[in-house]
Amino acid sequence: MIVDVVLWAGDASGEKVAGKDAAVIDVFRATSVIVEAMKNGAEAVIPVETVREAVDTAERLGRDGILLAGERDTVMIEGFDLDNSPLKFTENAVKGKTIVQTTTNGTRAIRNSRQAASLYIASFLNYSAVCEKLASPGRDIVIVCSGREDEYTAEDGLCAGAMAGQLAEKYGYALTDIAGVMAEIYVSAQDDLRGRLSSTRHYRHILGRGYNDDIEFCLQRDIYGIVPCYHAGGYIHLECNP
Amino acid sequence: MIVDVVLWAGDASGEKVAGKDAAVIDVFRATSVIVEAMKNGAEAVIPVETVREAVDTAERLGRDGILLAGERDTVMIEGFDLDNSPLKFTENAVKGKTIVQTTTNGTRAIRNSRQAASLYIASFLNYSAVCEKLASPGRDIVIVCSGREDEYTAEDGLCAGAMAGQLAEKYGYALTDIAGVMAEIYVSAQDDLRGRLSSTRHYRHILGRGYNDDIEFCLQRDIYGIVPCYHAGGYIHLECNP
Repeated sequence: MIVDVVLWAGDASGEKVAGKDAAVIDVFRATSVIVEAMKNGAEAVIPVETVREAVDTAERLGRDGILLAGERDTVMIEGFDLDNSPLKFTENAVKGKTIVQTTTNGTRAIRNSRQAASLYIASFLNYSAVCEKLASPGRDIVIVCSGREDEYTAEDGLCAGAMAGQLAEKYGYALTDIAGVMAEIYVSAQDDLRGRLSSTRHYRHILGRGYNDDIEFCLQRDIYGIVPCYHAGGYIHLECNP
Repeated sequence: MIVDVVLWAGDASGEKVAGKDAAVIDVFRATSVIVEAMKNGAEAVIPVETVREAVDTAERLGRDGILLAGERDTVMIEGFDLDNSPLKFTENAVKGKTIVQTTTNGTRAIRNSRQAASLYIASFLNYSAVCEKLASPGRDIVIVCSGREDEYTAEDGLCAGAMAGQLAEKYGYALTDIAGVMAEIYVSAQDDLRGRLSSTRHYRHILGRGYNDDIEFCLQRDIYGIVPCYHAGGYIHLECNP
């Protein structure tokens, strides 16, 4: 039983993911959004790659009960109902709705990881619950960071490190070299995540766009025990075997 | 001026390397071998990807004065003159010779990085000299780890981290997030490199094959001030503009 970490969406190839149990992380902000939406009663999230695909999917499902959500280069897409800020996905906004979501990195990481045997949605908000879910079958695990434009980003690496460390210590998994690196940097950063992130690119980009409250929200750890699950049909649901 | 790190040979694409100044690292053992061979008076090293290409190159150059060197799965290739152990590349063995080298990961990383504006051969043996060479033009830098079978390996990451840290502290470079991670793990490991590597895959593989003395040799830091340089013609030479 070994835990590997993929560092950005484009590296989530079949070879690295296929047949393993997997979790996808996009701390800023796509998977934090999915977890928050699910916790607030959204029926499902359908991650798609392009704006065109999002609009087509919404029309195919009938626009009723559907919310279009997402961003390009951090900002809301014209004609969409919601952007990529988790604070907007309140119970009032999402309860009972199906959300069609497209983001620059996170939804692409999810789609690229479709060949995993099981695929869970992870964030700092729910990472220990995801670890428990992953550990129970005792199979090889891959944690997929979304990164940004096919580069590693520190916030996803820290969340992957939190998970890898927990899987090693609590559940006895071995770690690949890169998973070990991520676990190590999480340990050194865990008492001050914002301090550790303050010099990093994506964090500064998000902060510069005025999303300080989103950052604060997304860095909360283990506030939820839910584990959203990606299904072969292309949607994310709170139940893994509905 | 920014320093990026590529974590394995297959990721050294044109996009990440082209036009930058680059250094390639394969601590265990290809770039350590090149540095040692150059220091001991080898005329040139020609890195090639396949055994067939190595044999063809040697025949094309005339077998006289040529040494065939390399490994597959850590062991010597049948009919070759030298394996991939730096301790074999003594002055007596290599002085005045041209070495045609093929290894599983290191020579591939060098070849994949050919689009760099300048391309240097780095190892723990000479890393500070390479940093000085890289820093002098003041351009963007990419440090290419060879890794193993397109996975990150800890020993290359630590050497990349030593270089990234020095380029930041001594020469004022900014670091990408992943370069920052590597610099951080080097700082935490620098007082006991072997201890830090003891649980890692490639280190254990090499040790298991009986190459303890090679490991000891390759982890020596800054014992040489030479900077081998890859030339567009496909060979590595001690002079960068011969």
